[in-house]
Amino acid sequence: MRTREVLLRAAAEVFGEVGYPGASITKIIDRAGVTTGAVYFHFRSKEGLARAVIQEQAADLDFPEGEPGLQHLLDLTLYLASELQRNTLLRAGVRLAVEQSEAGLQEYSIYEWWAERFGEELDEARGRGELLPDADTGAFASTLVAAFTGAQIMSQLASGRADLPRRITSMWRCLLPGLAPADVIGRLEFTTYGEEGSTR
Amino acid sequence: MRTREVLLRAAAEVFGEVGYPGASITKIIDRAGVTTGAVYFHFRSKEGLARAVIQEQAADLDFPEGEPGLQHLLDLTLYLASELQRNTLLRAGVRLAVEQSEAGLQEYSIYEWWAERFGEELDEARGRGELLPDADTGAFASTLVAAFTGAQIMSQLASGRADLPRRITSMWRCLLPGLAPADVIGRLEFTTYGEEGSTR
Repeated sequence: MRTREVLLRAAAEVFGEVGYPGASITKIIDRAGVTTGAVYFHFRSKEGLARAVIQEQAADLDFPEGEPGLQHLLDLTLYLASELQRNTLLRAGVRLAVEQSEAGLQEYSIYEWWAERFGEELDEARGRGELLPDADTGAFASTLVAAFTGAQIMSQLASGRADLPRRITSMWRCLLPGLAPADVIGRLEFTTYGEEGSTR
Repeated sequence: MRTREVLLRAAAEVFGEVGYPGASITKIIDRAGVTTGAVYFHFRSKEGLARAVIQEQAADLDFPEGEPGLQHLLDLTLYLASELQRNTLLRAGVRLAVEQSEAGLQEYSIYEWWAERFGEELDEARGRGELLPDADTGAFASTLVAAFTGAQIMSQLASGRADLPRRITSMWRCLLPGLAPADVIGRLEFTTYGEEGSTR
């Protein structure tokens, strides 16, 4: 399992630096310091490595603690915005998920995974009486994933992702009125994980 | 100018089919039936062609008519959702704008252009008294571009963009309560441009 982990992270580094078409198995093997056989044993191919980086993009995250609900979902998205500035596996997985038509991967499941995760938090929020009665949690979960995905592409181009936390906060200000009553919104806190543009 | 138009559309076809890394100037020249010199004269390089396809992605659109305002902005986004199913130049321009880190283009201006265009419609809506007093039109314009961008990526993977009009309608249902009062929302019509999954 150790070799697989080393390979996965070397692949994330290389895919994150040069994208799918520019990455070669040779470059990934050199980075990982393993044999060609190890790639074929654990991932079969460059395509298999790319799929693993997409699917396991969240493996190095250390999600914020706290009770599930609206505040926790907000914390989670702002934590992700900050991790996209520095977490190699997340950055590479998100990049490949966005640019995957180059590779013909058709990996929709990672978007569904995030939408389900956000949806679970919204269902918890509903159980806690935090949501408006007619808020459609499935529609909001999907729209949150879409808006986050687009915001990170725009932020990457505009500022190398330095302004991503600000964009995610702004996205929430637009979405919250359809999701929760004013008194619940008023109690939410927008935590910033690390300074804008800083690296740990 | 005729040669430039022919080349731009041939480039859009090739970039739309194989993406930036897979496209060659030779393939684009063959498709256009022009000389190599014409590419260098009008666009200088493959990168210049890609920038033009991104920046001129809206050139073949025939925007819906009507008074500017919230209904018109809604119509515009649903029209774009439908055009993304068939308009070669728009599809290629959006694909390159999303996957441009492959090419190192750093073309943020097209996202700003759309945000400004959406922002103008929102400012008109404000002038017509259609918006909530505290709705931040700049934040909504930017969030609309982000959510649209993410929705089209997800729709492309999930259904080849057949479900994009439904996703855009769902996005609006989430965003409208923060933007406009209930009586204005109640009067909005969600027009579908062409059937889901159909091609003209």
